[in-house]
Amino acid sequence: MAGSIYGKIFQISTWGESHGKGIGVIIDGCPAGLPLNEDDIQIYLNRRKPGQSKFTTMRKESDEAEIISGVFEGKTTGTPISILIRNQDQRSRDYGNIMNTYRPGHADFTFDQKYGFRDYRGGGRSSGRETAGRVAAGAVAAKILKELGIKILTYTKAIGPVSVPENEYDFSQINQNKLYMPNADYARQASDYLEKCLQEQDSSGGIIECVVTGLPAGLGDTVFDKLDANLAKAMLSIGAVKGFEIGDGFAAATAKGSENNDSFCSENGEISKFTNHAGGTLGGMSDGSPLIFRVAVKPTPSISQAQETVDKDGNPVSLTITGRHDPVIVPRAVVVVESMTAITLVDLLFTNMSAKMESLKAFYL
Amino acid sequence: MAGSIYGKIFQISTWGESHGKGIGVIIDGCPAGLPLNEDDIQIYLNRRKPGQSKFTTMRKESDEAEIISGVFEGKTTGTPISILIRNQDQRSRDYGNIMNTYRPGHADFTFDQKYGFRDYRGGGRSSGRETAGRVAAGAVAAKILKELGIKILTYTKAIGPVSVPENEYDFSQINQNKLYMPNADYARQASDYLEKCLQEQDSSGGIIECVVTGLPAGLGDTVFDKLDANLAKAMLSIGAVKGFEIGDGFAAATAKGSENNDSFCSENGEISKFTNHAGGTLGGMSDGSPLIFRVAVKPTPSISQAQETVDKDGNPVSLTITGRHDPVIVPRAVVVVESMTAITLVDLLFTNMSAKMESLKAFYL
Amino acid sequence: MAGSIYGKIFQISTWGESHGKGIGVIIDGCPAGLPLNEDDIQIYLNRRKPGQSKFTTMRKESDEAEIISGVFEGKTTGTPISILIRNQDQRSRDYGNIMNTYRPGHADFTFDQKYGFRDYRGGGRSSGRETAGRVAAGAVAAKILKELGIKILTYTKAIGPVSVPENEYDFSQINQNKLYMPNADYARQASDYLEKCLQEQDSSGGIIECVVTGLPAGLGDTVFDKLDANLAKAMLSIGAVKGFEIGDGFAAATAKGSENNDSFCSENGEISKFTNHAGGTLGGMSDGSPLIFRVAVKPTPSISQAQETVDKDGNPVSLTITGRHDPVIVPRAVVVVESMTAITLVDLLFTNMSAKMESLKAFYL
Amino acid sequence: MAGSIYGKIFQISTWGESHGKGIGVIIDGCPAGLPLNEDDIQIYLNRRKPGQSKFTTMRKESDEAEIISGVFEGKTTGTPISILIRNQDQRSRDYGNIMNTYRPGHADFTFDQKYGFRDYRGGGRSSGRETAGRVAAGAVAAKILKELGIKILTYTKAIGPVSVPENEYDFSQINQNKLYMPNADYARQASDYLEKCLQEQDSSGGIIECVVTGLPAGLGDTVFDKLDANLAKAMLSIGAVKGFEIGDGFAAATAKGSENNDSFCSENGEISKFTNHAGGTLGGMSDGSPLIFRVAVKPTPSISQAQETVDKDGNPVSLTITGRHDPVIVPRAVVVVESMTAITLVDLLFTNMSAKMESLKAFYL
Repeated sequence: MAGSIYGKIFQISTWGESHGKGIGVIIDGCPAGLPLNEDDIQIYLNRRKPGQSKFTTMRKESDEAEIISGVFEGKTTGTPISILIRNQDQRSRDYGNIMNTYRPGHADFTFDQKYGFRDYRGGGRSSGRETAGRVAAGAVAAKILKELGIKILTYTKAIGPVSVPENEYDFSQINQNKLYMPNADYARQASDYLEKCLQEQDSSGGIIECVVTGLPAGLGDTVFDKLDANLAKAMLSIGAVKGFEIGDGFAAATAKGSENNDSFCSENGEISKFTNHAGGTLGGMSDGSPLIFRVAVKPTPSISQAQETVDKDGNPVSLTITGRHDPVIVPRAVVVVESMTAITLVDLLFTNMSAKMESLKAFYL
Repeated sequence: MAGSIYGKIFQISTWGESHGKGIGVIIDGCPAGLPLNEDDIQIYLNRRKPGQSKFTTMRKESDEAEIISGVFEGKTTGTPISILIRNQDQRSRDYGNIMNTYRPGHADFTFDQKYGFRDYRGGGRSSGRETAGRVAAGAVAAKILKELGIKILTYTKAIGPVSVPENEYDFSQINQNKLYMPNADYARQASDYLEKCLQEQDSSGGIIECVVTGLPAGLGDTVFDKLDANLAKAMLSIGAVKGFEIGDGFAAATAKGSENNDSFCSENGEISKFTNHAGGTLGGMSDGSPLIFRVAVKPTPSISQAQETVDKDGNPVSLTITGRHDPVIVPRAVVVVESMTAITLVDLLFTNMSAKMESLKAFYL
Repeated sequence: MAGSIYGKIFQISTWGESHGKGIGVIIDGCPAGLPLNEDDIQIYLNRRKPGQSKFTTMRKESDEAEIISGVFEGKTTGTPISILIRNQDQRSRDYGNIMNTYRPGHADFTFDQKYGFRDYRGGGRSSGRETAGRVAAGAVAAKILKELGIKILTYTKAIGPVSVPENEYDFSQINQNKLYMPNADYARQASDYLEKCLQEQDSSGGIIECVVTGLPAGLGDTVFDKLDANLAKAMLSIGAVKGFEIGDGFAAATAKGSENNDSFCSENGEISKFTNHAGGTLGGMSDGSPLIFRVAVKPTPSISQAQETVDKDGNPVSLTITGRHDPVIVPRAVVVVESMTAITLVDLLFTNMSAKMESLKAFYL
Repeated sequence: MAGSIYGKIFQISTWGESHGKGIGVIIDGCPAGLPLNEDDIQIYLNRRKPGQSKFTTMRKESDEAEIISGVFEGKTTGTPISILIRNQDQRSRDYGNIMNTYRPGHADFTFDQKYGFRDYRGGGRSSGRETAGRVAAGAVAAKILKELGIKILTYTKAIGPVSVPENEYDFSQINQNKLYMPNADYARQASDYLEKCLQEQDSSGGIIECVVTGLPAGLGDTVFDKLDANLAKAMLSIGAVKGFEIGDGFAAATAKGSENNDSFCSENGEISKFTNHAGGTLGGMSDGSPLIFRVAVKPTPSISQAQETVDKDGNPVSLTITGRHDPVIVPRAVVVVESMTAITLVDLLFTNMSAKMESLKAFYL
């Protein structure tokens, strides 16, 4: 099994390699009647596209999405939506030197162990380019959420040691800087930090934060398919993500119950919580507060300084990776986090509809 | 959907409520020929059982497992294994006062929102007691792993602010203290800390760490069903878990590529890594190094000091929770983490068998 | 994998062997708020129970169902419903002589081939007794359907050569004879035929027909999860079923298009069809006409006349099966067909709810 | 949900509409190391291609398959294989007159009921053209089976009343006539019959039979995922299929146990059966005999004689379908049956590998 299918009712199947002919996704289970065109998808793909700034790979990819099925006269028909993105700038010559060498921090070795050999051109299926299909599907999921009044805001909380404190968030800044940080000053500091990394032939990690508002309470299941469990899987399924936390997350481990519990309150008959240490979920179900979670992204493993490693026969190799690589993955991963969140939420919204006999009867009778 | 089924080939279905008649699990997809008896399961259940120390609820449950199907003449037959644990100490009178009140940090409110009403006796399905079924299944999964030479070691890394540093680990101590910490001194400090929490009518969170050795390289899939993604879901599906990180985890966000990359090396033809910042996985597949990850557990939400909240009609209530509650969930959750890990790994081992034509042919021809 | 889990959102997990300690089912994904008690289930189980007539095994089983979870104060809570039926009349001595022998028409040989050995007591998991769990779940599914105005009628169309023609159906007779046939005369003839089979130490096959009314049009998916495809799987998953046909079924193979097409008509704005050769489904989706399909059931393989076979070492054996066996499976399988139909339809009703953006918005906004 | 994903480990996702831009499939879970190129797929597609004879639609489609991912240097890599077939001869003007009319025997009405509207061009997703994706995937599955020594033979058993008796089968003839019948004389009779149907502006149904040899015994699961149950679903998921039977099928309903049971025998230590009434499966698992089953195919619903029907507002319409339509679906469906069989068997072979601890240990240790 290759594990390239995700979701229960809203199901996406992604395919494609970094330096193959193209990359894409099929979305099965999209409701009929959603207005959809290629621009909707392009807006999302552009946020992930290479070449946006000096901190992203110079690979030339227009990343133009073609919808080949599932849309008729401007609306989804309920049938699978197939989206195709042809690779343009394949330049496989760049990658010749890594054909037999195991790059540190990459999937070269594990791929060979699992499958016996690999498409060594630019990481193949394990390239970050794989996420283009997810983002195309995420654009569709996000459009469904929007129609239901649900909004997702995703941004770079930290790059290396430069982290924007919560009380200095200015969400209007997110799209004003190429790092997608919610504060212009911190964005500048982060930019300086990345500049230094580049000079040192090094790379940086960071943290992405995501906030979802407008979710109905009660979304998510009570045991294995908890809202937070499904989100955790969605996030860790993104290459380079090494951690996930919701609400106070790891800080809850050092807190006391009296500090960590969110008391309920009520205003005009609406029940809500005074605080949101939980991050919008209780017992695996959304609690009506904003959903808030963070992911830790490791530094780009492809760095241009020489690294010690071995080839596939175990011979020591001093590896110098040339070619086009982002010194930080975080800014381009922001939209991937948002996409996987949207896809996960849509699926939970769909599987949630039969939770009560009462609403089932209202639906069918 | 209730989301109480987990796994693709090795599939478990858990059921049962805190104060219903019992709790249990069905394991579908267990291979035939595994020696199995009730003692195998009891050993695991005992690690989760209430009443082990003064820091665990005094609820009296012998948690005796009965295997009702799937085992014949001491061996699994390949058919579903049904395991039943009757609840004994149901004392539902303890829980009368929470019938209409939304306890902070619990699933009462979200359960009502999703399902319209709830079994209010002791948390019902959202009680930590739900994990007994997982642990019973985990015992079976762990036995399969053992036959394949794979070992899981799980322990309490931290309770509140008391955290055992990696260089002071003494694994021989884990089962020598009731908190399952790998260091006797830290266990004493943690015990003192919990004592203080109890006196303050408060509770504590903590961190559990898990290490798996003996895994073949190449386990896990390359996109959505990454080894770490599936583990993240498994962990966040445990109530009270608020974060997951693998290898360096969140620390990788502040690291540089040159620090975070693990260089490959080779000895006697065996390829391995000098370091293990990745925590044993690359590109979603095991890399032959020990798998190492941590989860953050929030403080027990049930504390005996008075808390402000509301009832289901939105009226303010000052809630005092009496009855039996653990001041810390962590020690009893150690075996739950281990169980979910075992279940997740077994399933990935099974779905992995058709990865190569070569091994497929060796299997069938 | 043992394949004992069925369904996508309304999921059942069955377990148990013929001569083990018990048999049962977990239903995950049942909506909250459905009134349910053990009597609802018992009514269904009684239709499958042994000992109803001289044509059913004399095995003594009261088949009493205990609901152990998922129901609170008379209503389902949305959490898994665990139903347990303890085996009473295990009399395993009856089955000693088949321990090493491969009974013709049974799963003994294939079980050994797949799993290496088997629970040889009375067919183990491959016994017809396995269906008790399905019937318990079917009772719950049927209750959901009833609340939605959907009715299932299932009956014995034929036993051996005795087949009730469509124009002689009298549905009021179905529960008036022990063979569940919709015509008293044919029931008598069938009874005579079975009597003769018994005298000849032989057994008979037959045909079960099922009619569903009240289904909304548009149920079922357009490609793999067609309504009829899912029903076909459900039916062939019942041991002893060897064929499935919907509407005109195999007769359609010799028909012409002009005969087989059902023309649409309209009355008072309601669109329907003049005829129903299709059996209520077009393109895999229900068309608003009654759903009508048939299954072929093979003769009971356990016959008391001597049969040639081999033991597990390949030695020839003349096998005489003693003990309690139905000379015909059909009457007891009627409720199994009905149960699997109900379970399949409920699941499709649940997965169908997100088909249109319009209804999605009506549901959530 | 659109239900366009099939399989558990070997999973295919098909997409595309009759008159959209193209049609295709993603295969996830194909083992690495299978030699594969576009010719392998083309051979299968050509068997389904329109325009093979006067009895198939004259639509011009070269049906050229492009492999866009998952194959590297002539071998599968273990990652998703995306196969794209561009539609060429879309001529949507042919279909203008059916935009608002419900064609008898088609999915127009049910599609509108489920999704609110439809892509009315040539049946859209419910067109037989949808099967091109399945056939492309079937070619890959068949290649895997071939490497494992498993062979599938599929042919037209009957067209309308012209049915080839088993004792007149001559398999060498199958590819010698355009109807894929295993007897030249019957093929001529069937051809004459179809000629007459054409003259009468009518169409014919038929029966396809499929025989699989070389299957290991023990394949398939014991309860819901029985080999025959999964095949039944696979077959009924093909549009126009109205019935499925395995072995003696419906004839078993009138047989006696003594006739229907297949006695086991043994030669040189190999256990087999004297007869094969069961059609190669016992208790849902393959028994080592050839697997043999049949499907009933209804007559093409598109006939050129005038038909009574209604438009979407319920107004009566006399419909005359012009354009290109096969007077019989059967010959082109032969390869679809073969493809769905191959896909189903491969998936069961993959999920079967963890059935025994013994083989699990041999695999991993």
